[in-house]
Amino acid sequence: MALVDRVLLGPGPSNPYPEATAALAAPLLGHLDPEFLRVLDETCARLRTVWGTENARTLPLSGTGSIGMEAAFANFVRPGDTVVVGVNGLFGERMVDVAGRYGAEVVRVDHEWGQPIDVARMLAAHPAPRLVGAVHAETSTGVRSDIAALAAAVHGRDDHALVLADCVTSLAGIEVDIDGWGVDVAYSGTQKCLGVAPGLAPFTVSPRAWERRVEHPPTWYLDLNLIGAYVDGSNGGRTYHHTAPVAMIASLHAALGRVLAEGLDAVWERHRAAGARLREGLVDLGLDLFAAEGHRLPELTTVRVPDGVDSAKVRSILLNEYNIEIGAGAGAFATSVWRIGLMGHNARLDRVELVLSALARVLGR
Amino acid sequence: MALVDRVLLGPGPSNPYPEATAALAAPLLGHLDPEFLRVLDETCARLRTVWGTENARTLPLSGTGSIGMEAAFANFVRPGDTVVVGVNGLFGERMVDVAGRYGAEVVRVDHEWGQPIDVARMLAAHPAPRLVGAVHAETSTGVRSDIAALAAAVHGRDDHALVLADCVTSLAGIEVDIDGWGVDVAYSGTQKCLGVAPGLAPFTVSPRAWERRVEHPPTWYLDLNLIGAYVDGSNGGRTYHHTAPVAMIASLHAALGRVLAEGLDAVWERHRAAGARLREGLVDLGLDLFAAEGHRLPELTTVRVPDGVDSAKVRSILLNEYNIEIGAGAGAFATSVWRIGLMGHNARLDRVELVLSALARVLGR
Repeated sequence: MALVDRVLLGPGPSNPYPEATAALAAPLLGHLDPEFLRVLDETCARLRTVWGTENARTLPLSGTGSIGMEAAFANFVRPGDTVVVGVNGLFGERMVDVAGRYGAEVVRVDHEWGQPIDVARMLAAHPAPRLVGAVHAETSTGVRSDIAALAAAVHGRDDHALVLADCVTSLAGIEVDIDGWGVDVAYSGTQKCLGVAPGLAPFTVSPRAWERRVEHPPTWYLDLNLIGAYVDGSNGGRTYHHTAPVAMIASLHAALGRVLAEGLDAVWERHRAAGARLREGLVDLGLDLFAAEGHRLPELTTVRVPDGVDSAKVRSILLNEYNIEIGAGAGAFATSVWRIGLMGHNARLDRVELVLSALARVLGR
Repeated sequence: MALVDRVLLGPGPSNPYPEATAALAAPLLGHLDPEFLRVLDETCARLRTVWGTENARTLPLSGTGSIGMEAAFANFVRPGDTVVVGVNGLFGERMVDVAGRYGAEVVRVDHEWGQPIDVARMLAAHPAPRLVGAVHAETSTGVRSDIAALAAAVHGRDDHALVLADCVTSLAGIEVDIDGWGVDVAYSGTQKCLGVAPGLAPFTVSPRAWERRVEHPPTWYLDLNLIGAYVDGSNGGRTYHHTAPVAMIASLHAALGRVLAEGLDAVWERHRAAGARLREGLVDLGLDLFAAEGHRLPELTTVRVPDGVDSAKVRSILLNEYNIEIGAGAGAFATSVWRIGLMGHNARLDRVELVLSALARVLGR
C-alpha cells in the first residue's frame, strides 16, 4: 500500500518533530523497566519546564487531550459543586458537558465565538464557585484568552475557587506559565504544538488543588491517586496501575528534548513569526480574519471563506492535489471559516509560503 | 543516548510485530483525512475477524487495555444494578473496583488464584444479575477460564444478564469467539498478543448489549454514543468526538494485517506450540508450574520461584546481562512466582530457547 504524505496544517494533529517519530519506532521497553522509568521521570521533568511549574503532580495521562478535561472534572469536582465555565467555542461547550456528567452545578458564561473570555463577567457569574474553568487557546476559533488575568482575579477575591485551564492548543506554542499565573489544574494534548502524535494528555496539578482532590473519584482509569502511585512513586515505590503507553511517552520525551534544546523562548518566537506572516499573507490575498484582533493565536489562524467559494471543495483540492490539510470551521462556522494551523514542527516560514501559494492558486487570486 | 533493545517476555508489553513498528513511524494522517478513515474502517473490520464477531460496534478505544474495562462498566451498568464478578486474580479484583465506582451492587465470587472461574458458582451467586463479568485470560496468574461455558450457562437461564469478558491477554493469542460464545461486551489491549505497543483497547458490543446501554453515561471520553458517531459514522456522517490516536491506530491496522495474513488458526497454533515447549523446558529445569493444569495459557506461563532463589535478583540479571524481561508475580505471589510471556511476535521457538537457556544459566541448572 502506498503511503500518503500530508502536510498537516489543520487544527491538529500536526506533523510531529522528526525526533518524536524516530522515538516511536525505537525498540519498545517494558513499563516497569528501569530504563523506561528513567525516560518517564525525565518526561515529567521536561513537562514541568514547558508548563512553567514546579508541581510534583505533572504527568502525561494515557489518552488524547480530552481525557485531560475528563480527569480534571473527575478528580476536582464533587456532585453539587458550583463550576463557572467560560464558553467562547467548542471546547468551552465541552467543559460544560463534562462538568455536568460529574454532577457539577454549571454556571456557563457565554461569549460570542471568536471573542476571548471576559474576566469581569466570569467573576460576576457566581460569588463563590468551587472551580472556574476556561480555554486558553480555543481550537475552534483561534482565540487566546488571558488566563493570567482570570486566575489573578479569581484568586484575588478569595481562596475558595480552583482555576482550571485548557491548554491543549497553547502548550509549547505560546507562553504558558502555570505557577506564575496561579493556575491550579491544566491539561494539554500532544498532537498540537508539542509536535507528537495524538495519544497523551500532559496534566499538571498545584499543591492547593491536590489537597482538595476527590479521594475516591468515580473513575478508576483516571483516578490520580492510583496513577500518581505509578508515575511518581509517591508511596515509596512504583505501584502498577495500568500499562503505560510506553512508545507514546518515549515520543513525547524526544519531542520535549527537541523543544527544550531549541529553547522555549525561541519556540514561541518561531510560532509568533510564522503566525504573523500567515495572517499578513491571508490579508494580502483579500481574505478576512475571523478571530478578534489582538487575541489571535499564532499557532492557529481562522479565516473567513470568501463569499461564493465552496469551503469543502477548496479543502478537498488542497488535500488531494497538494497533500495539504487545512481545517474546516467548527460548529456554526463549519462552512464559513477555515482553520490553518502552524503548530510545533510546522511553525515554519516554508509551511506558511506553501499554504499561502497553494491557497492563492486554488482560489485563483 | 544509546537505545536499549529488550526481549520483552513479561506479561506485556511484548515486542511488536515489525509491521506495527513501521506503521508507527509512517507519515501521520489527520483524524478526518479520508485516507485515515479508510484505515480506521479497515481496522474495525479486521478487529471483527479477530474477535469472531459481526458486531457493528467494534472499535479501538483511545487508551490502554484497562480503559476497556472502564468503558464496559460506564456504558452498561447503572447505579444499583447487580453485577456478578468472578475473581481469580488481579484483573477480577479490578473489575470489582471499577464496577463499584459506577454504582453497581457487586457480588464477587472468589476463587483461589491460579484456578479458573467456576461456572456453577458464578450462576449460584445471584438469581438475576444485570451483568456477569469474568476474565478470559488472567494476566496475573496465567489461567484461562471457560468463557464459552459461562456465557452459555448465563444465557441459558434467562435473557436478563449481559456477559462481559476481559480478553486483554487472550485476543489473537488463543481462540476468542464472541458471537459463537454469546459474549455481549468484551475488551482487549494492543500490547499483548496483538503485537502492538500499548495505547489502544479493542472493544466490541453485541446488538443486545447496545440496546441496553446507558443513554447518558457519567463519562464523556468513554461515552460510546459519541465515540460511535465518529468511528462508525452511524448518524450518517463522521462527527468529531476526540482526536483519534492516529499513529497507534495505523500500527494496530498493520499488526492485524500481519495476523490475518498468517491466519488466525496458524497464529493460535504458534502460541500453543511455543507455550507447550516453554512449559516442558521449565519442568525439565526442575521448576514447578503455578497455574492449574489444563487451564494454562500458552501466551503467559507462571512458574514458581525455587526455594532459596531471590526472585528479583534473577529478573535483574536476566534484564541487565541478557536484555530479557520476564515478569514478577502479582499480588501475594510477587516474589514467589515468575510470569513469562510469549505473545504475538514473541510466540516463537527461538524466544523459548533463549529464555530457557538464559534462565538455566542464571539458576545454575
